[in-house]
Amino acid sequence: MDEIDVPESHPRYESLLTRHRIEHGVDLGITSRQGLIAQGRGEAYDYLLGERTTESADRAERAAAAHLLRAAHPVLSVNGNAAALVPGELVELAAATDADLEVNLFNRTEERMERIADHLREHGADEVKGLAADGRIPGLDHERAKVDATGIGDADVVLVPLEDGDRAEALAEMGKTELVIDLNPLSRSAQTATVPIIDNIIRAVPGITEHARDLADASPDELDGIVEEFDREAALSAAEDAIRSGDL
Amino acid sequence: MDEIDVPESHPRYESLLTRHRIEHGVDLGITSRQGLIAQGRGEAYDYLLGERTTESADRAERAAAAHLLRAAHPVLSVNGNAAALVPGELVELAAATDADLEVNLFNRTEERMERIADHLREHGADEVKGLAADGRIPGLDHERAKVDATGIGDADVVLVPLEDGDRAEALAEMGKTELVIDLNPLSRSAQTATVPIIDNIIRAVPGITEHARDLADASPDELDGIVEEFDREAALSAAEDAIRSGDL
Repeated sequence: MDEIDVPESHPRYESLLTRHRIEHGVDLGITSRQGLIAQGRGEAYDYLLGERTTESADRAERAAAAHLLRAAHPVLSVNGNAAALVPGELVELAAATDADLEVNLFNRTEERMERIADHLREHGADEVKGLAADGRIPGLDHERAKVDATGIGDADVVLVPLEDGDRAEALAEMGKTELVIDLNPLSRSAQTATVPIIDNIIRAVPGITEHARDLADASPDELDGIVEEFDREAALSAAEDAIRSGDL
Repeated sequence: MDEIDVPESHPRYESLLTRHRIEHGVDLGITSRQGLIAQGRGEAYDYLLGERTTESADRAERAAAAHLLRAAHPVLSVNGNAAALVPGELVELAAATDADLEVNLFNRTEERMERIADHLREHGADEVKGLAADGRIPGLDHERAKVDATGIGDADVVLVPLEDGDRAEALAEMGKTELVIDLNPLSRSAQTATVPIIDNIIRAVPGITEHARDLADASPDELDGIVEEFDREAALSAAEDAIRSGDL
């Protein structure tokens, strides 16, 4: 049950759907306590942003799509909230960009890993990585460092939605191109990102997929152009301005 | 166990203490899922405010203390997050202002009501109201409307920390003087309040208590002066300015 009994035209549809999916995530043992608190922080920032995808965020989503399409090995990292909020949408994005899906948790337990992988499979995922845990991210403590050697360990481009600052920094130090979805433009994750996407994950993931489909037949030069044109500093400033000037 | 093993001088002491108490509240069955999400929203707004009590909020806390001291029957309304975050501090404020403590929940279950009342008693409360539920707030649906006839039902001044908008409005329509603690100055609760206190509850409740002790021997005229001098519109604007201009 990922859908709610409210018409899409309802002014609070997205917000109600989000709440519903997060609650369902708790029921499934996917969303943690910290995940619920993080969800609340996101709600406040999204409210300040006007609960909309800004033009600047849309450009970031297009740049993210171009990065994923031209990558040798793109991986979408999935944590508990991402799995609860956009399971089907992540599976679609993986299909549109030929990316791997890898579960990666801040509070890793085998049980939560399995539940999240199951949830993604129920939403159409063929293969879900993260359970082998035979690779390590240097500079993080044992549990936090675990990744799949054939997944994030080998990836050149990683989409990390709702990532914590330590891991975002460690992945960047490994030389990976990081596409970060985060509603706080001054978070360490957003500041570290090659492409900071300051948008609600529930809008951002379908947004990237749409751009990826639009760019499916684009030439390598075209993709390079989009990637090179993207200005991360401008994206961060625009998001900060939107938060400062929007309705509280 | 309400304390944490971190020195008070630690730069993140307050934030760590808050997290610890909220987690403990979940373990005790006091803090709900919605409470965890609300906690996250509060964290984001407090971060924007600079995690400090502004001068304007301090004036609001003094005005709230004066209101409580001159009231015929002041009541402190306590929900799950308030009980988890500041149980002992609420008991101290009740003692300093001769106010009743009444449990009032958005998602009312007898079990949570009992647990919260127990938690307050463990922190020194003699009497905890809310369980009689023999009064009603007009204009709210059945479960949300329940109050004690000899508590909030009879009160002239009510402190409502972290209240939801519907109930804040309904209490105001009953003609009660509402003192609201809320980190979002544009929330309906804050907008409805006689005294909006835009501050973290973990700082605001001890702040009001300190002012109440300072004003313990104040004359009725002095208290009236503080109440009349307080400018709610200025308090709301100052909080909005602080959020807009502070660090993200």
